[in-house]
Amino acid sequence: MKKKYLNSRRAFIRTSATGLIGASLISAASPAPFLYRRKKEKLGIALIGLGYYSTDLLAPALQETEHVKLTGIVTGTPEKEKIWSEKYNIPEKNIYNYENFDDIANNQDIDIVYVVLPNSMHKEFTIRGANAGKHVICEKPMAMNAVECREMIDACNKNGVLLSIGYRLHYDPYNIEAMRLGQEKVFGNVLHISCGAAFRNTSTEHWKLQRSMGGGSMMDMGVYPLQAARYVTGEEPVSVTAQSYTMRESCKDIEEAVNFQLTFPGGTIANLSTGFHAGFNYLLVSAERGRFELQPYSGYRGIKGKTSNGELSFPKMNQQAAHMDDFALSVRDGQPVRVPGEEGLKDMIVVDAAYKAMKNNCAVSL
Amino acid sequence: MKKKYLNSRRAFIRTSATGLIGASLISAASPAPFLYRRKKEKLGIALIGLGYYSTDLLAPALQETEHVKLTGIVTGTPEKEKIWSEKYNIPEKNIYNYENFDDIANNQDIDIVYVVLPNSMHKEFTIRGANAGKHVICEKPMAMNAVECREMIDACNKNGVLLSIGYRLHYDPYNIEAMRLGQEKVFGNVLHISCGAAFRNTSTEHWKLQRSMGGGSMMDMGVYPLQAARYVTGEEPVSVTAQSYTMRESCKDIEEAVNFQLTFPGGTIANLSTGFHAGFNYLLVSAERGRFELQPYSGYRGIKGKTSNGELSFPKMNQQAAHMDDFALSVRDGQPVRVPGEEGLKDMIVVDAAYKAMKNNCAVSL
Repeated sequence: MKKKYLNSRRAFIRTSATGLIGASLISAASPAPFLYRRKKEKLGIALIGLGYYSTDLLAPALQETEHVKLTGIVTGTPEKEKIWSEKYNIPEKNIYNYENFDDIANNQDIDIVYVVLPNSMHKEFTIRGANAGKHVICEKPMAMNAVECREMIDACNKNGVLLSIGYRLHYDPYNIEAMRLGQEKVFGNVLHISCGAAFRNTSTEHWKLQRSMGGGSMMDMGVYPLQAARYVTGEEPVSVTAQSYTMRESCKDIEEAVNFQLTFPGGTIANLSTGFHAGFNYLLVSAERGRFELQPYSGYRGIKGKTSNGELSFPKMNQQAAHMDDFALSVRDGQPVRVPGEEGLKDMIVVDAAYKAMKNNCAVSL
Repeated sequence: MKKKYLNSRRAFIRTSATGLIGASLISAASPAPFLYRRKKEKLGIALIGLGYYSTDLLAPALQETEHVKLTGIVTGTPEKEKIWSEKYNIPEKNIYNYENFDDIANNQDIDIVYVVLPNSMHKEFTIRGANAGKHVICEKPMAMNAVECREMIDACNKNGVLLSIGYRLHYDPYNIEAMRLGQEKVFGNVLHISCGAAFRNTSTEHWKLQRSMGGGSMMDMGVYPLQAARYVTGEEPVSVTAQSYTMRESCKDIEEAVNFQLTFPGGTIANLSTGFHAGFNYLLVSAERGRFELQPYSGYRGIKGKTSNGELSFPKMNQQAAHMDDFALSVRDGQPVRVPGEEGLKDMIVVDAAYKAMKNNCAVSL
């Protein structure tokens, strides 16, 4: 705990100092020295893994962030180095591959690493990042299982670095409102949750279709309805049942679709669906004195919602930018991490149980 | 088959003759003799059991029907006789109790009996009605199990009378559109169905809370999502898994809530929910090239729907009146019964399997 504080503190001091210098340099010319100063306070982040999510979501989001900027990349594909370097003005000294990644420990441009690799590599690169003294954001699902999650949390604690899981919906105002409506019992106790998140995965060769890489629809999409059931109730499930289905040859190594059911200490029942077989995205909540729903509920944008009292409407925002900015403030100012490693661990405990329930066709107590 | 035809034919001749007399009597005075003639062609129906559904839904619907009218009642509660007799102008000779019900065989005012009793009494009164030569509409669920359903179908066939199950949604235009969209594969194969129908049952003493009376949320409400999955796919499920939950003391004799899952020969997965624990009502269908949904989907009124192409909009109608009118035309003109006993049997085969799956925590093949 002490080391973590010191580490955050160190980051805070360094970035504040930079900011102050910047402010003094432009104080005469600029009508908004405060804004400029804030800009110069940005922490540096390196994306580890330059696949779709880094390319199409995170890098663009980092053009909108206020407290963090893209300063480095880690990739196993040499041809991507040049493309990214030119597009985002990343100096060669901030480009790493999976072999020399540990040298990042000596790079003061990079405060945070964001693990955007196949699930089977989350543990290794989170721990290597932590050992290099970098704060870590790790994509969901956190790891292959709860055991790995605990190792990752321990490694971050040991190194005094912060850890967050890429659950961007904790920054989406519609989902935040669903959390509030459920947890504050605005319509009374939540009695039933129906939630599903799935897409039609037409890949034939992708790591998400390979069990050993951490593939499977439960891992990739199942954590969304699981998260929703957990954050709407604000409770941890006490039992899980699950049924898996595989229809297509391309999915023979994994569960193509999963239905799973949770019960919660407060009496809530959740019936959840996920899959690579079909496109659906809904969160329907039934409480004692009313209902609320989001549909779609877990998209990067376009979320819509309503309650028994009418439509919900919130301004557009960038979930990924908000998450990375907030984590940067945790690093810089020591504020609590909104979506810490423990949140990913809690999910993986349920995912482990769901796999057991699928396999043994039984109800698993938690 | 021959006897059934004769029976329908007899009904047709009698009502047509009555109609013609009526028409000739008013032909000079009325500007619309045709309409009056149609009115006089109405078949007679007796409601068996005068609880909520008869009182609040069926009797009012029978004020809107074109081909059938309320001519008799069967009740075990003497004080209801006078109330109904006065309100609906029912002559004393058309009022029966559960003991003298079989005398209805000799009553030419009554062509159809509608069994609106607790589920445990469906078989007995359907068979007694059939043996009395009356056509029968029986409320859902058809009976306690598939064995009873087969006995009921046999009794009706033996007596040459028609049988229909009270699945009014087969007359609702939104649900008919959902059948068309699914069965005609308007958006391609149906891949996933999420459907739930439940209400918060706050009774403490009601036959729906008693197993021996055919109570339970699976029996009462579970047949709605089961029906939906069957009529959207147009297929019979090949496997069922089910989980039951009981939270409240008042529900200790039954399953308070059920989640159940079906798979279909064409590859559709259905994840379904029902219960007495919460209020929800939705049908979400995901197909290869689009989606469609109804929410609420199984109400007596107020159904709303949309597809990937936009909102659905159909005129208001009375489901119960449409069902009873259509059945009257089957009786009168020999047209096929839209929702025959076989439809109720198909559901009860799945309900039986769902109870087995709940009890043994296993997947049951069908």
